[in-house]
Amino acid sequence: MDAITVIRAKRDRQALTDEQIDWVINAYTRGDIADEQMSSLAMAILLNGMDRREIARWTAAMIATGERMDFHALDRPTADKHSTGGVGDKITLPLAPLVAACGAAVPQLSGRGLGHTGGTLDKLEAIPGWRAALSNDEMLGVLRDSGAVICAAGDGLAPADRKLYALRDVTGTVESIPLIASSIMSKKIAEGTGSLVLDVKVGSGAFMKNIEDARELAETMVGLGNDHGVRTVALLTDMSVPLGLTAGNALEVRESVEVLAGGGPADVVELTLALAREMLDAAGLPDADPARALADGSAMDVWRRMIAAQGGDPDAALPVAREQHVLTAPADGVLTGLDAYAVGLAAWRLGAGRARKEDPVQAGAGVELHARPGDRVRAGEPLLTLHTDTPERFPAALEALNGDAVRVSADAEAGAGPIVLGRIA
Amino acid sequence: MDAITVIRAKRDRQALTDEQIDWVINAYTRGDIADEQMSSLAMAILLNGMDRREIARWTAAMIATGERMDFHALDRPTADKHSTGGVGDKITLPLAPLVAACGAAVPQLSGRGLGHTGGTLDKLEAIPGWRAALSNDEMLGVLRDSGAVICAAGDGLAPADRKLYALRDVTGTVESIPLIASSIMSKKIAEGTGSLVLDVKVGSGAFMKNIEDARELAETMVGLGNDHGVRTVALLTDMSVPLGLTAGNALEVRESVEVLAGGGPADVVELTLALAREMLDAAGLPDADPARALADGSAMDVWRRMIAAQGGDPDAALPVAREQHVLTAPADGVLTGLDAYAVGLAAWRLGAGRARKEDPVQAGAGVELHARPGDRVRAGEPLLTLHTDTPERFPAALEALNGDAVRVSADAEAGAGPIVLGRIA
Repeated sequence: MDAITVIRAKRDRQALTDEQIDWVINAYTRGDIADEQMSSLAMAILLNGMDRREIARWTAAMIATGERMDFHALDRPTADKHSTGGVGDKITLPLAPLVAACGAAVPQLSGRGLGHTGGTLDKLEAIPGWRAALSNDEMLGVLRDSGAVICAAGDGLAPADRKLYALRDVTGTVESIPLIASSIMSKKIAEGTGSLVLDVKVGSGAFMKNIEDARELAETMVGLGNDHGVRTVALLTDMSVPLGLTAGNALEVRESVEVLAGGGPADVVELTLALAREMLDAAGLPDADPARALADGSAMDVWRRMIAAQGGDPDAALPVAREQHVLTAPADGVLTGLDAYAVGLAAWRLGAGRARKEDPVQAGAGVELHARPGDRVRAGEPLLTLHTDTPERFPAALEALNGDAVRVSADAEAGAGPIVLGRIA
Repeated sequence: MDAITVIRAKRDRQALTDEQIDWVINAYTRGDIADEQMSSLAMAILLNGMDRREIARWTAAMIATGERMDFHALDRPTADKHSTGGVGDKITLPLAPLVAACGAAVPQLSGRGLGHTGGTLDKLEAIPGWRAALSNDEMLGVLRDSGAVICAAGDGLAPADRKLYALRDVTGTVESIPLIASSIMSKKIAEGTGSLVLDVKVGSGAFMKNIEDARELAETMVGLGNDHGVRTVALLTDMSVPLGLTAGNALEVRESVEVLAGGGPADVVELTLALAREMLDAAGLPDADPARALADGSAMDVWRRMIAAQGGDPDAALPVAREQHVLTAPADGVLTGLDAYAVGLAAWRLGAGRARKEDPVQAGAGVELHARPGDRVRAGEPLLTLHTDTPERFPAALEALNGDAVRVSADAEAGAGPIVLGRIA
């Protein structure tokens, strides 16, 4: 077996054999296949695709390169959620304690932001004292004591994926449905959750720009999960506009706490409850009532325990950016457009995200919305507030919001579109 | 400008801009683009193509990374030839001195073999004492004194291509017409020849397996040459069967000397004369008579001077392999098939070629043919002799010649097919 033969096979539109896939994943993890060989193979996969058998084998081979966690010793069913990433997507923060408050255990291994989409760990690190890195034993302890844990995935889970993901990130080979699906699912299956709900985002602020691609990705992942014994369901949800009224680390924590306190923007509450119901269903708890757990404060209790268990102070003041810049509505009318990608890019440029893995992020930076698409606005009223510690970043952020990113129409009807666009089980 | 944006553009089937191409070639040569980024771009180019403007700019950018040679100080017109590579293709050896004997100067920068095709430098190194590496001054000296020089290309010519070629070789990205054409032509244009004849091989033993691909490659290269002021012509020639009666280093030198002595296999003589006439025409010497220069020994005189000028002894005995194995004809009839790729693979496995750049080659190893396709053969008569210093290589070489590689038919007509299949000017 050699790398060039495998690359040529995929380049020439052949399906890779099981033996070729197992060998490639193992040899790459060991370092016997060079990065430049794996990246040309990744580009060939991106352009020529993989069939369902190839994707399943690729995923299984990545899982087999590392350890598998096991939560069978817990006295509750496990449920996890994964979002493909969007702008203002803070749903994990209220969702994990909410589902735990309803009786499931939620082992939420999360990542950091890269590019215009934020990362759950970056957001939680805005809370003074909170730490993302836990040993497996610490993670199990927080999960047992709080019912939910949000932390960084350990190095032991699917190391092949870790290496391949870093490579794809710098070689223009991220946007491949087989590679995205196998990357997400190898980690989630290795993590050992009993059930999984996928939030597959569609629209300008998401990886998947159209519903067909999102549906294909969702179907691929649901198939992979169920084939490996993880009860898996996917919702297709709108990411053409930002989720909620904030994009940025501390800004999103504040909004999440509002939701846990029974308030918060309607779309964030709606999506949190929709995903909670799917997770509880998949975990075998169909009679749980997540709306009540939000209203009666039990979800907030889990949040406070979970944050404190990882060194965070749930009562501490959150960081606030040193500088603000306000954008006002240009005319009276209805806010018909607020492009998710543009807002994500602006938040990134303000310092909320990173261009390279090793970059720091600003806890206070980001974009705050004063109106949502569908809302009536009046000329001169604040529309957006930009936050940053480094005001020299304002011009580039404002440039991202130029052109068609913000649209106000005099003769449009008020009202927002649906957030859940489809369901795949 | 950044690498990921350029990779994504080609991945998404966009044409690269002039600025993008200049930047990529320079940044890769400097080391600012990593190998794993260039290889995913190369795969995207292989699968999505480049248009004529892109190929021209890519070639010009590669030329600009290095020095350009200049032969205007010579008192003769310069003519060079390049073959895309085949099995038994020793034509450069008799051709360069032959064209020099007819009045042109032939600066022939050549390469080494890789895989199943042989390399001109490996062949000449079978001559005791001969050395391939010359400084630019030494090269000009041999060219001035002998009229022809065959040597290794210096490191200064198109260093971008040198680096990219090595990368393509290990990443399954060799077989791309835009990348092959720009690689060949960047070196030939930088070399400074006034005219160039391309021998574009077609068939199982060539990179191009069918005439359409060969024609596209030839047209691309002829366009690039003429656009850069090099009078360029291409012949499309058959490589479905080996050229001549030998494949292997010393074996091919011996056959080349036979041609220079006025003998040798008919197909080698025919192709040598056809290419010589094209080179002399392109160099502005249409009245030269290469057939006479073969017959009267003047080409042989140039050969002897040229070999001696690079330390070689033209009278020395050539190395002979320690072991031979003879294959005989299975039946009476006409030899209708002798697959070029199979013979090349057998010669490679016997030790005539190398799997990696740093491997040594055996001077005496190779395959000797006792009949050519179209010849009548009789059962039990020798058909092929395999030569190697290491007899443990025989089984793998014989395996390459199994199956359909050698075909004898009782009821076929004797006679060989044409060698020149087309001409592009």
